[in-house]
Amino acid sequence: RDRLHRSLTPRSVAVVGAKGPDFGWLENNRDFVGPLYSVQLDPNEITEIEKRGFTNYLKLEEVPEDIDLVICAVPRPIVPFIVSDSIKKNVGGMAIFSAGFAETGEEEATELQDRIVTLANDAGMPIVGPNCMGVYNRRQGVKFSDGVDHGDGGTVSIMGQSGTHTIGATTMAQRVGIPVSRGISFGNAVVVNEADYIEYLRDDPDTQVIGVYLEGLKDGRRFFEALRSTTPKKPVVIWKGGQTAAGQRATRSHTASLATPMATWNALLAQTAAIPANSVDDLLHVLQVLVHTTPPRGRRLALMAMTGGQSVAISDAVGRQGLEVPELADKTYETIGEFFNVIGGSFRNPFDMANTIGMAGDSANLARIMNAVSEDPNIDAMVFEVAAGFFSRMWRDEPERLDEMLDTLDGFRERTGLPIVTVMHAGAIDDEVIPIRDQVVARGFAVFPSFDRAALALSRVINYYEWVEEAG
Amino acid sequence: RDRLHRSLTPRSVAVVGAKGPDFGWLENNRDFVGPLYSVQLDPNEITEIEKRGFTNYLKLEEVPEDIDLVICAVPRPIVPFIVSDSIKKNVGGMAIFSAGFAETGEEEATELQDRIVTLANDAGMPIVGPNCMGVYNRRQGVKFSDGVDHGDGGTVSIMGQSGTHTIGATTMAQRVGIPVSRGISFGNAVVVNEADYIEYLRDDPDTQVIGVYLEGLKDGRRFFEALRSTTPKKPVVIWKGGQTAAGQRATRSHTASLATPMATWNALLAQTAAIPANSVDDLLHVLQVLVHTTPPRGRRLALMAMTGGQSVAISDAVGRQGLEVPELADKTYETIGEFFNVIGGSFRNPFDMANTIGMAGDSANLARIMNAVSEDPNIDAMVFEVAAGFFSRMWRDEPERLDEMLDTLDGFRERTGLPIVTVMHAGAIDDEVIPIRDQVVARGFAVFPSFDRAALALSRVINYYEWVEEAG
Repeated sequence: RDRLHRSLTPRSVAVVGAKGPDFGWLENNRDFVGPLYSVQLDPNEITEIEKRGFTNYLKLEEVPEDIDLVICAVPRPIVPFIVSDSIKKNVGGMAIFSAGFAETGEEEATELQDRIVTLANDAGMPIVGPNCMGVYNRRQGVKFSDGVDHGDGGTVSIMGQSGTHTIGATTMAQRVGIPVSRGISFGNAVVVNEADYIEYLRDDPDTQVIGVYLEGLKDGRRFFEALRSTTPKKPVVIWKGGQTAAGQRATRSHTASLATPMATWNALLAQTAAIPANSVDDLLHVLQVLVHTTPPRGRRLALMAMTGGQSVAISDAVGRQGLEVPELADKTYETIGEFFNVIGGSFRNPFDMANTIGMAGDSANLARIMNAVSEDPNIDAMVFEVAAGFFSRMWRDEPERLDEMLDTLDGFRERTGLPIVTVMHAGAIDDEVIPIRDQVVARGFAVFPSFDRAALALSRVINYYEWVEEAG
Repeated sequence: RDRLHRSLTPRSVAVVGAKGPDFGWLENNRDFVGPLYSVQLDPNEITEIEKRGFTNYLKLEEVPEDIDLVICAVPRPIVPFIVSDSIKKNVGGMAIFSAGFAETGEEEATELQDRIVTLANDAGMPIVGPNCMGVYNRRQGVKFSDGVDHGDGGTVSIMGQSGTHTIGATTMAQRVGIPVSRGISFGNAVVVNEADYIEYLRDDPDTQVIGVYLEGLKDGRRFFEALRSTTPKKPVVIWKGGQTAAGQRATRSHTASLATPMATWNALLAQTAAIPANSVDDLLHVLQVLVHTTPPRGRRLALMAMTGGQSVAISDAVGRQGLEVPELADKTYETIGEFFNVIGGSFRNPFDMANTIGMAGDSANLARIMNAVSEDPNIDAMVFEVAAGFFSRMWRDEPERLDEMLDTLDGFRERTGLPIVTVMHAGAIDDEVIPIRDQVVARGFAVFPSFDRAALALSRVINYYEWVEEAG
């Protein structure tokens, strides 16, 4: 456990086998806060490595200081030697990028993997991987991809058996205003497994929410127990890869993961209140609600759309997820009825309000509507359509009106403490939508590309909090 | 029927009640191929209308020529007078943008609507609407929004009870390379209804595929019969708004549509082989497959992903939709096995092939893979991941490699005649993805933002063609 901590939060890192043309494993870790060494004995590579300003050694044991994390990127037949060297050097642990082990289905490759596992287990040395992108630590500046940030902060940790999905979720999370504190891409998971990681993150002060991509279980019983002790403290969102026969065939050649029947998985999720997800988008959307909103106190939603067509679409989207769209209190209707333009509009919930607050309407009316709704006792959360398609020209010409709108949403959020999620459809006009979306993200709102995505994420989070409350 | 045709394919148009500041109904129709008149008696507006170069008349009857389509945008109490004037003038028909009728739930508003309906029906004059965005005709340059194109071509027609969704689907379709020939936004549908429109589009030579957004049925029996006679000739995709209790409440205040039980709807869809959709994205995605691919001959897919994580995700996505991922023929495996890099890759289907064709790999290898797959007898269609996130830097530096890849896809499509759809995840890097996506679109490929969306659209289209074939 202590050595795993050293590996995941290293104060010194050595990259073994960095290679041109891009020397990614060294370059990606340029921002690492501690000493970063290269170990490479090919003279052709060494010249370039040293030109780039990294200190190179011919052997791991020549590195003069202690090493917490070895990143191993050598061809597979050499991996056992690097494992031995690392054990001799008494490093914290290793992340093995090298692939071509049990997942190839080749007998020799599986034997090669077994040798590595035996060596590491005998020495008590943790290995992340092999066949993975390894470790990301935001604060330490350890990076598994050049697309990830470094710096302070971070509340979510992502652990995943796929490099693509772990890096994908991490970078997509950043884009929607969620700094990820840790990423662990762990591939074949043969020495340290999913149960070890979940236990680690359960007790990790840098982790408030956990996102998981998993293809198979090495230690199902321990994983189940660890999960059960985690979810009452921290929400865990799990995307299971290999849900179908074809997907299970793919997990076998991806991370040598054996099939677990989906019925078993679903039972595991239900009994632990882990939140299910079915894609990286799905995983991310649930994280957005978890991070950007307060826990909902119920499932009754105020739906704020800008046109009649959208007011229907948003209502169906939340209705399909078992969420409720209540009528509001009489007092709310009275207050809003005094100024609301019902021609081409409606305010019974869902709201269809562009004519009242938009182009032709008075932008101060939005504040009046939000004030009235914030005093309504029938509402637990709000879904708000940011109609960038409709308003993008207005907001380009009068940018203060977008700010005003976001201030009004902010005011509602502060006054009521209720969760708000926003929806911005992209579609025909993504170029115009993206910069506006970035502004909404910068204000700390959860933002979704469709009503369906918002409704699904919201319902999953509401289910989770209901479970936490009942479990008490 | 003849007058409806005049209204939907007008050779002369009059806009009644165009108003500042933007005079949208006139400006949007600047590209109209025939004469465009304004009718407005407010002197303040007339000055600006004439300054913009439009000919204005004080009354409809003063317009010296025949008028095929009157676009009516006056306040609701004035609408009956314009309807009377139009009848006197013997126009082809009207599109009434004006709202505030039965959908408000007000008794007087419903009476106002009834007066209009009676006038129009007695005179046999078709009305599109009221409470709608009216008519779009690509070839004629009649536009219900400034975001829609005009010009030749167009294969899809969109009819919808919502202006937002009809315009949204039309503009989004353009963006993914589908020119829409007609759009009909018909709101309350009180004179001409959904059955009239579907019959019109069934027999319309400018329409090969029909997309529908519908909130309620005015003439369910006729609609059912019309649909049943259409789908064997042209696919019809229907998105039903008001699927849930909350959605039905919203349709009432949107287009005064009464609830139809979803069981009835589902039976109607099943019996007519209309293809269901649940959102504008959904509708559009099915249209993309229908327009951009040949009819699939079966449900066995080749899945081409760029990483192991994506090969799992794509397999699960298609598996969840009941599509198949078969093993390939031995000969295919032999051919590909000669050069494929199985370390960090796989080619058993799904393919995980970035290491073989990508950055480090040989880009000619993609052609070799596609050649082998194109001769495989076990494949009916292909889903191809365009990994813009992964490759965007390479494609920026060597744009010819993107072209080469698209040429290779094109070659596969031509040689095999099989459907191909592509998937480009956006997420963290939309700015980089959008220009690449535009290039894929320009080559006439169906492109989706996720495997799930591709799988769902593909499965719906396959189901439809299976039905057509069985129905014989």
